[in-house]
Amino acid sequence: MTLSIISEQTGPVSSRIPPHEMGPDEPIMDLSHVAGPSITATHTYRGAPALDILLVPGGLGSLALDQGGNTWIQEFVKSRMDQVDYMVGICAGVGFLAKAGVLEGKRATTSKAFWERATSFGENVNWVPSARWVEDGKIWTSSGVAAGMDMMYALLKHLYGTEKLDPMINNIEYAPHTDPNWDAFSVIHHVPGADPSIPLKDCVGPPGYV
Amino acid sequence: MTLSIISEQTGPVSSRIPPHEMGPDEPIMDLSHVAGPSITATHTYRGAPALDILLVPGGLGSLALDQGGNTWIQEFVKSRMDQVDYMVGICAGVGFLAKAGVLEGKRATTSKAFWERATSFGENVNWVPSARWVEDGKIWTSSGVAAGMDMMYALLKHLYGTEKLDPMINNIEYAPHTDPNWDAFSVIHHVPGADPSIPLKDCVGPPGYV
Repeated sequence: MTLSIISEQTGPVSSRIPPHEMGPDEPIMDLSHVAGPSITATHTYRGAPALDILLVPGGLGSLALDQGGNTWIQEFVKSRMDQVDYMVGICAGVGFLAKAGVLEGKRATTSKAFWERATSFGENVNWVPSARWVEDGKIWTSSGVAAGMDMMYALLKHLYGTEKLDPMINNIEYAPHTDPNWDAFSVIHHVPGADPSIPLKDCVGPPGYV
Repeated sequence: MTLSIISEQTGPVSSRIPPHEMGPDEPIMDLSHVAGPSITATHTYRGAPALDILLVPGGLGSLALDQGGNTWIQEFVKSRMDQVDYMVGICAGVGFLAKAGVLEGKRATTSKAFWERATSFGENVNWVPSARWVEDGKIWTSSGVAAGMDMMYALLKHLYGTEKLDPMINNIEYAPHTDPNWDAFSVIHHVPGADPSIPLKDCVGPPGYV
């Protein structure tokens, strides 16, 4: 497996959050106290190789891109949609899939904490208010960032099966949420249309043993 | 808060795993198929600033350092132990604390999947076989990497309180394990001395609501 990290330029890319507005007419928010590492982009979007899976991560940096009128991510998503086997969005990253138009007529979910804004992109998207993640054909989308771990467990299980996957998950000692419908966060964040009967707790443990 | 990422040199540091032996007389293991990003080191250990918290992460790269006779991490840990407010180790990273001698007479835990090797370092360490994480004074240590998330939730709660922390955790939609004694992984990995009465499942949900 090869991991290509794609950005506008190769080299270090900060994961810190540039100043941005949280909404129209709101003051500029400065989150420069939020620490984050830089990771190294291996390719520009112009020079990116063929991809089996295109994963668009989340983060508030998406707001800064929007407000700066920078559209490279949605254009890249659109240009690669037909070639990839899986198009994956996590949290605010799902917004780029919506803006690219690839969610039209599809079921998808996104961040529950920022639901109103996060679902303001795209047309005719069937936004699912209570879902930790949603699979619709080759499009997989997850709720807030931590839900991305559980979606990736489900996607890797789909690709490789539990026999190969579970020993690795047990080695890293992660107890995944395996029910995509468990979304207590949609309830506590009062997402319109959320299913109030979802239990707040989910009981999890080592996969293959529970 | 300032995040300093400390390594032997500044600039990109690969998180990929160099070839290494898993144990004495075992063949060299090549895990070059395991993908991982490069992150940017901000300081060398010689030029690192004063630190409030020193966190030593895990990973199989620790084996390659050992086998190459590279001891900079344990020397850095030893040199900073008196100055820091918290000395934190995650998974195989705990081994560097042990090798530095700072765990002598202390309670600590580490990876359950690689328990025998992981606990082979240090002298007079009171290794706790069933614990997702262990706090002993200013030393906090966690089991395998995913347990590090739950330890960090506990440490941040200790530092900032739930009123500030929980809204952020609920925004990222993480449901932390809050009981340090829940360690189903010690049971499934057959760690000697593990508590067999620990339930395999832990029921978790949005902090502050469950």
